[in-house]
Amino acid sequence: MSRTLEYFFDYVSPYSYLADSQIPGLVARTGAELVCRPMLLGGLMSETGNSPPATVPAKGRYMTADLARWVDRYELPFAFNPHFPAKTITALRVSLVALEEDPASFPALKRALFRAVWVDKVDPGDTSVLKSVIDAAGLDADHLLARCGEPEIKDRLKANTEEAAARGAFGAPTFFVGDQMFFGNDRLDFVEAALR
Amino acid sequence: MSRTLEYFFDYVSPYSYLADSQIPGLVARTGAELVCRPMLLGGLMSETGNSPPATVPAKGRYMTADLARWVDRYELPFAFNPHFPAKTITALRVSLVALEEDPASFPALKRALFRAVWVDKVDPGDTSVLKSVIDAAGLDADHLLARCGEPEIKDRLKANTEEAAARGAFGAPTFFVGDQMFFGNDRLDFVEAALR
Repeated sequence: MSRTLEYFFDYVSPYSYLADSQIPGLVARTGAELVCRPMLLGGLMSETGNSPPATVPAKGRYMTADLARWVDRYELPFAFNPHFPAKTITALRVSLVALEEDPASFPALKRALFRAVWVDKVDPGDTSVLKSVIDAAGLDADHLLARCGEPEIKDRLKANTEEAAARGAFGAPTFFVGDQMFFGNDRLDFVEAALR
Repeated sequence: MSRTLEYFFDYVSPYSYLADSQIPGLVARTGAELVCRPMLLGGLMSETGNSPPATVPAKGRYMTADLARWVDRYELPFAFNPHFPAKTITALRVSLVALEEDPASFPALKRALFRAVWVDKVDPGDTSVLKSVIDAAGLDADHLLARCGEPEIKDRLKANTEEAAARGAFGAPTFFVGDQMFFGNDRLDFVEAALR
């Protein structure tokens, strides 16, 4: 039985922000090995023919109420990002560089980026804003941002996104335990059961 | 605080079948007054611009795995209906007649209809099949089916569907506790919290 938890996410997704807050506890309880797979949600949606919930206005309105309930349950700070859907491609590439160079630094970076988007309402598509978030998380923003332009890093983000689509994903967050796929913050209890 | 639970559903919806199995327990635990509101899911989707999950092929494939997990958790019999999306409009109209004439008979009818679609794989659009399901549930099928043709009954189904849309629903099952809306079998825990 697989003890690896693959976690595909994008900072643009508020349900990824919710799920992200629960993953440390889940990993501690199950002893799973967490493998973080940043992916571009917009690319995944185009590839699979899916559309953001708010494409249906009633879904968008309900999402606001639903997010508020989860935020209450998890006791999280939260503010809907006014730049939504924010441009997260650089933040995702920075994440891939950090994962490659210094995996131990990645949890702090990931937390800082999710928090910047879903608590501090910053625009992660603004490079100067992104730089200050990365610096504040204790990483070398100039270096990480410089490496984002490398074709290999760009290709890695595309590859993660295409792999997610090929394995059946259509949204974020998506989890895999072996070949079992789980979509959404609201399936973390099934993820945990699969890891036990 | 409202103690009424309004429950909008359609027999065509497998997630309504799942939720329906949990409602007796939820009602017993909370003491809520259950108000059943049959509606036509296809009509609601057209009205709100929503589409069935399987419109996105990856979502359709995932739904199969997700349903199997819930069925295991709830320990329910289940078989995907080969007539999906089955024509449930007559079953819904029959339900409205039963709710009007003899509400005490309705839980048995609802259970029988959900079971016919999601366990016994029958086509509820076939009137002779529908008749035998209703008779087996101990109701007078000939009488109920005859009343389905009445304009008042047809209008009541339309009115339920339009009211659901007007109040923000876009899928099934949908629950209301006062003006708080909850979508999906996977939000029953939030429904229960709202009723406490």
